[in-house]
Amino acid sequence: MKNQAAVHLQRTMKQLVLTALLAATATVALADETAVPYPEGYRDWRHVKSMVIEEGHPLYGAFGGIHHLYANDRALEGYRTGTFPDGSVIIFDLLEAVQEGNAVTEGERKVVGVMHKDAQVYSDTGGWGFEGFGGGDPSERVVGGNAASACFACHAPQQSRDYVFSALRD
Amino acid sequence: MKNQAAVHLQRTMKQLVLTALLAATATVALADETAVPYPEGYRDWRHVKSMVIEEGHPLYGAFGGIHHLYANDRALEGYRTGTFPDGSVIIFDLLEAVQEGNAVTEGERKVVGVMHKDAQVYSDTGGWGFEGFGGGDPSERVVGGNAASACFACHAPQQSRDYVFSALRD
Repeated sequence: MKNQAAVHLQRTMKQLVLTALLAATATVALADETAVPYPEGYRDWRHVKSMVIEEGHPLYGAFGGIHHLYANDRALEGYRTGTFPDGSVIIFDLLEAVQEGNAVTEGERKVVGVMHKDAQVYSDTGGWGFEGFGGGDPSERVVGGNAASACFACHAPQQSRDYVFSALRD
Repeated sequence: MKNQAAVHLQRTMKQLVLTALLAATATVALADETAVPYPEGYRDWRHVKSMVIEEGHPLYGAFGGIHHLYANDRALEGYRTGTFPDGSVIIFDLLEAVQEGNAVTEGERKVVGVMHKDAQVYSDTGGWGFEGFGGGDPSERVVGGNAASACFACHAPQQSRDYVFSALRD
């Protein structure tokens, strides 16, 4: 009987461990579903436009430097039609602006900002997921759960343009 | 006889006109062989890097504004290996830099500068053909036959880097 009880306990423990593992996996899967993915290969995407934000500009604290916008093919469709389909990704690639000798050159990467369209997953923030990767490091998420206050608050007035500020140029 | 003479004259004129037309066509064909082609679709190419050149910079007269460099696939191979294969094309896309409110934004296109590698055709200028398209207009060639003095003179010291100043960054 002792052996049988031990076997039973072992089985129960195994089941508990398995259940815990499954629960943990489900949690990770859930987190991954809403986390904006790092935009692999975005440097090969279409360069939309650029801008330098200097000291004294109201956005200097957050976005001081030289930034380039890049768009994947779906986002290009969005720029052209006015409505960005799910899967549209727009990148705000911010580098240090090095002012020297009457020129501005590019320094270190400060952040890779991402807008990722998924109308269902990001319904609370206009259908867009927002994330920033500090220094361009895929593991350094600087927005996380704060997209509504840290990003969408400023984008909300752009509703008529699907919450996007930038426009495609030649 | 009068009629016959008139017919002969007409035939001679026709032949002269045809010969002139053929000669003109040949000249155009010859010019086209060495003329750097307008880089169709370059805005979809890889964005290499950018820079702002401000008043007071030694190159302000020629290149004042914000410029973006773009490279086709062969040029990317060149950046990576150090030797640019024939067919490599590098674009220097110069826009007005609009300084306002502690920011630099992009204005009108000033010129689309082109470096086009063909070791045989452009052997006099390091294997690179140079051209500038004023305002980005394919018919507005601002370099033409002056590539040696207007472009290559400045690029010559870059011989160890296949006459290219820019470098690929992440």
